[in-house]
Amino acid sequence: MNKIGLDIGGTKTLGVVIGDDGSIVTSAQSPTRFGEDGVLETASALVETLLAAADISPSSLSSIGIGIPGHVDRAGGIVRNAVNIGVQRLDIARRLRARFGIEIGVDNDVTAAAIGTAHLMRLQGTIALLNLGTGLAAGIVRDGKPWRGSTGVAGEIGHFPVDPLGLDCPCGQRGCLETIASGSALRRAWPRGGDRPGRVLLSAIATGDAEAQRAFDQLAAGTAAAVRLLVLSLDPETIVIGGGLSRLGEPLRQAVRAQLGLSGAESQFLTGLHLAERVRLLPTDMPAAAVGAALVQIAD
Amino acid sequence: MNKIGLDIGGTKTLGVVIGDDGSIVTSAQSPTRFGEDGVLETASALVETLLAAADISPSSLSSIGIGIPGHVDRAGGIVRNAVNIGVQRLDIARRLRARFGIEIGVDNDVTAAAIGTAHLMRLQGTIALLNLGTGLAAGIVRDGKPWRGSTGVAGEIGHFPVDPLGLDCPCGQRGCLETIASGSALRRAWPRGGDRPGRVLLSAIATGDAEAQRAFDQLAAGTAAAVRLLVLSLDPETIVIGGGLSRLGEPLRQAVRAQLGLSGAESQFLTGLHLAERVRLLPTDMPAAAVGAALVQIAD
Repeated sequence: MNKIGLDIGGTKTLGVVIGDDGSIVTSAQSPTRFGEDGVLETASALVETLLAAADISPSSLSSIGIGIPGHVDRAGGIVRNAVNIGVQRLDIARRLRARFGIEIGVDNDVTAAAIGTAHLMRLQGTIALLNLGTGLAAGIVRDGKPWRGSTGVAGEIGHFPVDPLGLDCPCGQRGCLETIASGSALRRAWPRGGDRPGRVLLSAIATGDAEAQRAFDQLAAGTAAAVRLLVLSLDPETIVIGGGLSRLGEPLRQAVRAQLGLSGAESQFLTGLHLAERVRLLPTDMPAAAVGAALVQIAD
Repeated sequence: MNKIGLDIGGTKTLGVVIGDDGSIVTSAQSPTRFGEDGVLETASALVETLLAAADISPSSLSSIGIGIPGHVDRAGGIVRNAVNIGVQRLDIARRLRARFGIEIGVDNDVTAAAIGTAHLMRLQGTIALLNLGTGLAAGIVRDGKPWRGSTGVAGEIGHFPVDPLGLDCPCGQRGCLETIASGSALRRAWPRGGDRPGRVLLSAIATGDAEAQRAFDQLAAGTAAAVRLLVLSLDPETIVIGGGLSRLGEPLRQAVRAQLGLSGAESQFLTGLHLAERVRLLPTDMPAAAVGAALVQIAD
């Protein structure tokens, strides 16, 4: 049977229909409407669009999976505090089930992206999806299954402090990795870049904007620190850079690898970890979170 | 069938005979002799002592497991660069197999301690043994099995830098967690404590030694940082403080919990992680590494 997966993001919602063999049958997207009712209506309409595009009925689906930011209660199918999309509390699984009559799974968008990344990039073993979004977090997958940890915070490395003299973090600590490597850190480091600095950063650097260059260098250094942290704790085979800032593409990956090479040059120990070789980039056209949302088992 | 496990440490080697049900049949210890031949002779003699004490022959053993510091090649049964015990390269599995005629497993001592800790303290799910020895590292066990990572460095959190202005680390980096929370860090912070400062630290504090107090506070703060790092990456149910410095006992655990409470007070996010509640102490009389060395499967 087919499955549908939705990746509900801050600006757009992306949906896919997945066949039995895990391949993408069809995909579609639409702008995400704000607030509980807006998000629900966006999701419902996109499911209808996907059903029509694939020419199937809800009864031919085994499940619909939702990847969504915020705090996800997977057992209850409830999303809380998804600030970017204006959701305080949304009983999304129950309400979509009422409409489509099939099983609905809800999961954290970063976890969904990690599952989809492992599947689409055919990565074996343990992989970490390092999500450079507004914040910084990693989704971890081992042999195709999500590693959530005992309380669901595994991979929340953005809130580990790495500099006692660093910037204040909204979490209440100081010098968290997220204050160095994330979309919000980039906005702070380069105010001229506006609300979506990732989209204009490389062109600003190309025109000689020194502040943009410094902000980019900081992002690369912080991302390299996140890679080191992931390897020294979880030791994944592969770390895939994803999230909105992964659109910085090959220049970002090269800068991160250069930072990792730099630290390796000072440390034989780090050289032996082959950090730079583990870093890959999520292709921008790969709907990892939507596919992962479709694939994740509700029991996982 | 019975198994024997040996924990080869810098000063002493501890051995246990384990019954089919995982209980300790008998145990014995002896000082560790220095160098390749010394270590091999220490291990062989201790196995003989254990066989005699349990009144069994080698043929009634299914295996002998060795937990040892240094770089362990598990497949080859070879130990390299175990500086504390004077071993450059020791083909320990082959040589003990030649002597006793049974299967010999060799594993990292911290991993062995983590396996033994989970078993002896009856801890379920994911646990991390935070080993405060000369260095700082964690052994990770999930559902009774070691989590080694893809290249065996999972849990090597001691070499993650947490302070750009911190002390130089022998690994070539600066401000590593190990420069704050470890036996070597304690020696550096409190030179008056001599070579084994952990043994006299609490009594020095009791007599009002302010430098000893500062060194203790730094150790507790660094250990708390290690706990945060483990939870934000791996999210284990339980973090057990082990290693030589765990002899600081309840005062250390209380100080670490106080540090974790302190950081929680500034951060609602951290409060929700219940960090302090996850921290336990390995009882000093518990032969965790020897039992873990006996229990670990060669295929694990």
